[in-house]
Amino acid sequence: MTKPGKDVKFRHRGSASSAKGRRLSTSMSDVSENPSEPSRSPTRIEELVKATEVEPANQSEYEKKKANFVTRTIWTLVMIAFFFFCMFAGHIYIIMVVTAVQIISFKEVIAIANVPSKARSLRFTKSLNWYFLGSFMYFVYGESVIYYFKHILLVDRVLLPLATHHRFISFMLYIIGFVFFVSSLQKGHYKFQFTQFAWTHMALFLIVGQAHFVINNIFEGMIWFFLPVAMVITNDIWAYICGITFGRTPLIKISPKKTWEGFLGAWFFTIIFGIGFSNIMSRYKYFICPVNDLGANIWTGLECKPNPVFIPKQYSLPVPLPDGVNLPTTFSIAPMQFHVFALATFASLIAPFGGFFASGLKRTFKIKDFGDSIPGHGGMTDRMDCQFIMGSIAFMYYQSFIAVYKTSVGGIIEAAITGLTAEEQMEVVKILSRHLVNQEVIPSKVLEYLDGQLKRR
Amino acid sequence: MTKPGKDVKFRHRGSASSAKGRRLSTSMSDVSENPSEPSRSPTRIEELVKATEVEPANQSEYEKKKANFVTRTIWTLVMIAFFFFCMFAGHIYIIMVVTAVQIISFKEVIAIANVPSKARSLRFTKSLNWYFLGSFMYFVYGESVIYYFKHILLVDRVLLPLATHHRFISFMLYIIGFVFFVSSLQKGHYKFQFTQFAWTHMALFLIVGQAHFVINNIFEGMIWFFLPVAMVITNDIWAYICGITFGRTPLIKISPKKTWEGFLGAWFFTIIFGIGFSNIMSRYKYFICPVNDLGANIWTGLECKPNPVFIPKQYSLPVPLPDGVNLPTTFSIAPMQFHVFALATFASLIAPFGGFFASGLKRTFKIKDFGDSIPGHGGMTDRMDCQFIMGSIAFMYYQSFIAVYKTSVGGIIEAAITGLTAEEQMEVVKILSRHLVNQEVIPSKVLEYLDGQLKRR
Repeated sequence: MTKPGKDVKFRHRGSASSAKGRRLSTSMSDVSENPSEPSRSPTRIEELVKATEVEPANQSEYEKKKANFVTRTIWTLVMIAFFFFCMFAGHIYIIMVVTAVQIISFKEVIAIANVPSKARSLRFTKSLNWYFLGSFMYFVYGESVIYYFKHILLVDRVLLPLATHHRFISFMLYIIGFVFFVSSLQKGHYKFQFTQFAWTHMALFLIVGQAHFVINNIFEGMIWFFLPVAMVITNDIWAYICGITFGRTPLIKISPKKTWEGFLGAWFFTIIFGIGFSNIMSRYKYFICPVNDLGANIWTGLECKPNPVFIPKQYSLPVPLPDGVNLPTTFSIAPMQFHVFALATFASLIAPFGGFFASGLKRTFKIKDFGDSIPGHGGMTDRMDCQFIMGSIAFMYYQSFIAVYKTSVGGIIEAAITGLTAEEQMEVVKILSRHLVNQEVIPSKVLEYLDGQLKRR
Repeated sequence: MTKPGKDVKFRHRGSASSAKGRRLSTSMSDVSENPSEPSRSPTRIEELVKATEVEPANQSEYEKKKANFVTRTIWTLVMIAFFFFCMFAGHIYIIMVVTAVQIISFKEVIAIANVPSKARSLRFTKSLNWYFLGSFMYFVYGESVIYYFKHILLVDRVLLPLATHHRFISFMLYIIGFVFFVSSLQKGHYKFQFTQFAWTHMALFLIVGQAHFVINNIFEGMIWFFLPVAMVITNDIWAYICGITFGRTPLIKISPKKTWEGFLGAWFFTIIFGIGFSNIMSRYKYFICPVNDLGANIWTGLECKPNPVFIPKQYSLPVPLPDGVNLPTTFSIAPMQFHVFALATFASLIAPFGGFFASGLKRTFKIKDFGDSIPGHGGMTDRMDCQFIMGSIAFMYYQSFIAVYKTSVGGIIEAAITGLTAEEQMEVVKILSRHLVNQEVIPSKVLEYLDGQLKRR
C-alpha cells in the first residue's frame, strides 16, 4: 500500500483536522486534476504537498499520524461494535447511549465558553450549568416517559402526581435556577455571567432539545432512529468519494471545497442506500414496532400491527406507456420508499449545515476540536453535530407524515371511565348505539330495549 | 404641596432612573430614619440630597423633572384607559395588545446587542432576527389557535393541512432560517454573528415564549390574564409603600434597598387585594369563562359552566375550638381563594426576579432604559419585565392545578366516530356496558340482550 493511499483513507475516516476534513468532505482534494481552479484553500494544498513529501521530510510526524490513525481506527471499530451491541440489547440501552452522548456534548460545548480564570472567582457558574442541564433533562425525559408509558404511570400512586404536575414541577425547577442565577449576579462579572446564561440556553436548546427528539424516535421504533443515523454517515462517506472522484463545480461560498458533483452523488447514493436499508429493516418487527415493552431485545423481538407505510401498495403509472413498450404499468411499493426519498434529501441537504454551524463555532473560539472525549476522534460534539439536527428533522417528519393517529378502543374506554360520571358513560353508550343504528350496523330494536331498560331504573 | 412630597410621588409612579427606582422599590428611601445602616448606596443618598436641595440649586432640572412627570402621568392614564377599553372590547383586542407588546419588547432587546456599525456590513443580520421572530410567532400562535379552535380548523379544507402539519411547517421555517444563518457566516464576523444568533434565541425564548403563555391565559378566561397582571402591579406599589414606611432589615445582597418589611408587607397586601379582586371578577362570566366565542365583549358576555374553583365549598376547622369560644367551625370558601394565595406568593416572591434580570442586562450593556417606546416611561421591556415571568407561572399553575380535565361526552363520541371503525365502536359500546353492569348502574340483562342482538347479525 502506498503512502498517499493511506493518507486518503485516513482522511476518509473522518480526518484529523476535524472541522475541515470531515464535514466539508465533498472536497476537490485532487487539486492537481484541476489546475484552472483558483486556489481558495492554500492550507489544504500545503497539507497535500506535505502529505506526499512526508516520508523524506519528516519521519517522526508521519509516525505520529500513523499512530493516531491506528488509535482512530481501533476506536471507530470499538464504537461501532458497542453501538450495535446496545441497539440489539434493547431500546433502553440505546437510550442510555444517546443520554451519555448528549451529556458529554453539553459538557464540551459549555466548556469552550467558560473561561476558567474568570469562572474561578464565581462559585456557582459551573454548578448552575449542570443544574439547568438536570432540570431540562428531567423535563424532556419526563415528557417522553409520560407520553409513551401513560398506562403504567396513571395507575401508580407515587408516580401519578409527578405525571399530572410534570410541567409545573419542571417549570418550578427552572424558575429556581433562574432566581438563583439572578441572585448570584456579581458586579464586574455581569457580561460574563449573562453570556454563560445565554450560552447554556443555546446548548440546552440545540443539544438536549434535539436529543429529546432522537429519544422519541427510538420510542417510535428503532428504524426511525437508526435509518437517519445511518443516512447521515452514508451521505458523509459518499460525499467524500464522489467529491474526490468527479468534483469540479464549486457549490457554495461558505465551503469552497464542496462541489455540485459531490453533493448530487452523495444524495443519489444516500437514496439508494436508504431504500435498500429500510427494506431490510422493514422485515423485522424489532425495528418497525414502537416500544411497548422496554425489556425487548433483538432475540425476544417486539410485536405490533405494523405502520401502514411498511405495507406495499399498488401504484399505477399516471400516463399509459407508448404502444409496443411491453412493461408493467402497476408497481407494488411500500409507501416507506417515498418517505426514504424525503429523509435522504434532508440528510444530504440540511444535516450538513449542523456540521457547518459547529465548524463556525469552533473557528469563533479558535479551537480545533470540541474536546478529546474519543481517542483519535476529538470531541463527541465533532462526531454528532449533524446527527442532532437530522434526528430532529426525522422526528418532525415522522410525527407529521408517518405516525398513525392513535385512537384505540382502549384509549376511548380509558378516557370514558376515568373522565366521565356513570350517567355520562351511559350517555356515551346510548349516543354511540344510536349512531350505529343510523349506520344500520345494529338493529333499531337494541336502542329501544336500551332506552326501556335504562328508564326503568 | 411641598417639593419633597412631589418628589416622592414622582418616584412612586415608577421613577425616572428606571432600573433603580422602579423595581427595587421596597426601598429604605428614608435614609435619615436609619443612621446606623451602612450606606451601601451613596448614589441614592446623593440623589435624595439633590432632591431636597433641588429648588435653590438647579431650577431648570426641577422643571425638566416636572415636565417628565406630567408626560409620564398622562401616558400612564392613556395606557390604563386603552388597556381597559381593549379588555372590555373582547379577547381578540387584548391579544392584539399583548402581541404588540411582545413585538416592541423583542425589537428593544434585539437592538441593545446589535452594534450598528458592525451590522451595516452584514446585510442579513437584522432581517434574520425578524425572520426568526416571524417563524417563532407562527409556531406559537398556531399552537394556541389549533388547541382552542380545533372544532373550526378540522372542518376547513384549506386550514386542515396547516393544522395537522403545523409543527413540521414551523420546524421547516426555523430550519430555513438556520440554514440561511449558516450560509451568511462571514469570516471576521463569526463572533458577532454567533452572539446575535444566541441573543435572538434568548429573546425569543424569554419574550415570545412567555407571551405565548400569557395569550393562552387569555384564552382560558380573562381572569387568568388580568389577575396576575394586577397582582404584579399591586405588589410593586405596596412594596414601595411598605418599604418607605417600615423598611429596616435588608433582604438580599443583590439589591441593598430591598427590605424584609417591604417584601412581607407587599406580600400581605397582594393577597388581600387578590382575594377581593378575584371575588369581584368571579361574579362575571365574561372573566371566568374560556373564550368559546371570539366575538364576545363585556356587553354580550360569555356563557359556560364555571370552573369548580369559583364555586364555594364547605370547609371545617381541623381541630375543635376550645370550650367557651362561640364561633362558627365551618366556612364556605371558593377554592379560588387558596389559589389566589399561591399566585400572590409567586407575584411577590418570584416575579420581581424578572425585573432584577432585566436590570442586570441593562447594567451589562450600560443603558438606562431598553428604549423610548412609551413617552416618559422608557422602553416597553422596562414596564413588562415582571409581567412575562408572572404570566408563565400563572399559566403553568393554572394548567397544573386549576384546569379541568377536558373529557366530555361530545369529545369521546367525536373521537369514537372519527377514529374507529363500526366494529370498534360496537366494541366500545359493549365494553362500556359491561363496565356499567359491573358498577351495578345498569342490569346485566342489557348486556345479555346486546350480545344476543349483535351475534344475530
